[in-house]
Amino acid sequence: MLRAACFPPDSLTPTIMQKTSTQPAGWQTLPRLVELVRSVWPDGHSVAGIGVAVPGPVDPFRGVVLRAPSIPGWENLPLREILSETLRAPVYIGNDANVAALGEWVYGAGQGHQDMIYMTISTGIGGGLIVNGQLLLGASGLAGELGHVTVLPDGPLCSCGRRGHLEALASGPSIASWVKEQLKNGVPSLLNQETQLSAAQIAAAATKGDELAQAAFERAGAYLGQALADYINIFNPSAVILGGGVSNSGELLLAPIRKIIQRQVYSHHFLDKLKLTTAALGDEAGLLGALALAQGLAEKSS
Amino acid sequence: MLRAACFPPDSLTPTIMQKTSTQPAGWQTLPRLVELVRSVWPDGHSVAGIGVAVPGPVDPFRGVVLRAPSIPGWENLPLREILSETLRAPVYIGNDANVAALGEWVYGAGQGHQDMIYMTISTGIGGGLIVNGQLLLGASGLAGELGHVTVLPDGPLCSCGRRGHLEALASGPSIASWVKEQLKNGVPSLLNQETQLSAAQIAAAATKGDELAQAAFERAGAYLGQALADYINIFNPSAVILGGGVSNSGELLLAPIRKIIQRQVYSHHFLDKLKLTTAALGDEAGLLGALALAQGLAEKSS
Repeated sequence: MLRAACFPPDSLTPTIMQKTSTQPAGWQTLPRLVELVRSVWPDGHSVAGIGVAVPGPVDPFRGVVLRAPSIPGWENLPLREILSETLRAPVYIGNDANVAALGEWVYGAGQGHQDMIYMTISTGIGGGLIVNGQLLLGASGLAGELGHVTVLPDGPLCSCGRRGHLEALASGPSIASWVKEQLKNGVPSLLNQETQLSAAQIAAAATKGDELAQAAFERAGAYLGQALADYINIFNPSAVILGGGVSNSGELLLAPIRKIIQRQVYSHHFLDKLKLTTAALGDEAGLLGALALAQGLAEKSS
Repeated sequence: MLRAACFPPDSLTPTIMQKTSTQPAGWQTLPRLVELVRSVWPDGHSVAGIGVAVPGPVDPFRGVVLRAPSIPGWENLPLREILSETLRAPVYIGNDANVAALGEWVYGAGQGHQDMIYMTISTGIGGGLIVNGQLLLGASGLAGELGHVTVLPDGPLCSCGRRGHLEALASGPSIASWVKEQLKNGVPSLLNQETQLSAAQIAAAATKGDELAQAAFERAGAYLGQALADYINIFNPSAVILGGGVSNSGELLLAPIRKIIQRQVYSHHFLDKLKLTTAALGDEAGLLGALALAQGLAEKSS
């Protein structure tokens, strides 16, 4: 499947060097990315498009990665231009949560919905919105930051530097750090404050009846429910889809979310057509969303 | 201009009675509404459409008023059917804040923006959103409840029965009731706790240097700024337009809003293309929005 003959690796470096000369750390990742794409390049077929889900804010209109916190040096990186020039195929880029939303919409739990909220609850909290049968991009392509809304003024510090954001109260690490704090305060639990705690471990303890672990999900679910009730009042969607690792805890998280939404939503009319569910595609949401992006379905009117 | 000959008032009552037989209080308003329309009916011209801005939640797809708190009996009222059968013209209905957003977008401060937030700050707080060059209606036409989001958990009681909503902290009556509370606690001020207080009176006192009145706008502006920063993170609009009576206080309210938005927004990229301004059409926003609705411009791609 390798097309190394057509795209020798050594011909790649100059282009990448040129585009990223001010961000020396960034280009190290690019040859690996290109090699990975080449390793799955279909032999004897042309490639209609390449979709890329980027872990950070992007400008999808210009094809530029604004910042990718987990990839050193990826700042103002013209990824579309670099990849399309190197791989000789049309390239489409999007923020990973937006692209996962697109995946769930076209191929997963959101099929057939014209107005849909997708929220991913993982190390961080991100989101993507389908409105009027289109992916909501906003004026600069940055729309959908569903984890960065204030749910508790002056609350815990968020990864973005502000306080009381949803991400600082209900992401996986936020749930774990609240549990650790309670353990330090002497709250009895099956969980051990000396070990690294994951949301999955806390969920396992909750399933065994551990009250602290259960309280941790009640608390996170309440903040998620509060934010989702707000989003429902704003968007009036027919589907709310929860993805990301923390959503694998299922009813532990969904039950308090559902309770708070029912209590907080502006009127029962908002619930009449609403489906609240976990994502259908799991870790494949980003991959299938990138496919949908390359297929030009971000503006699909289903 | 009266077309009473064609639409004699006594022929109207049976239709209205029939449609609203279970809500006897509602139909009293209808003959007055119809007479008002007839009083401006263009003599010798046909009418292409009638747009109606309804003060309450509506189902714009079915043309039904779900509830209009200020008009007794208007519940599940099939207003479009009643008016179009009586007046023999196509009728379009929308929620008043959504319709005002449409007015500002097509004829006012939002012209040329494809992604726009309109918020009206008055007796209540409502809103309307333009996304991807369309009015955001949502799955049931209820989208845009921008005043009913939680900005202070367990905060003051909102008109909708929930606590800590933006409307309960930054609407005209909420600003006045906070000032009254401070006056009762003995905070010195030019304002008098014995009289009815309006946002306009408080704004006048603030302009004269009254510290309590200034603090009232600082406080309301901070909550509005917090909610608007969240909306900017979600929608990434190029315009935020503030209407309603309280927005007439201008910089008293805009200065704290601007300060909090700048502090709270997820990244400076969200501000690069953003215009924050007061509405251009004043009380005419609803009227011109109803015109735009009748012109079929809710889905205009400008």
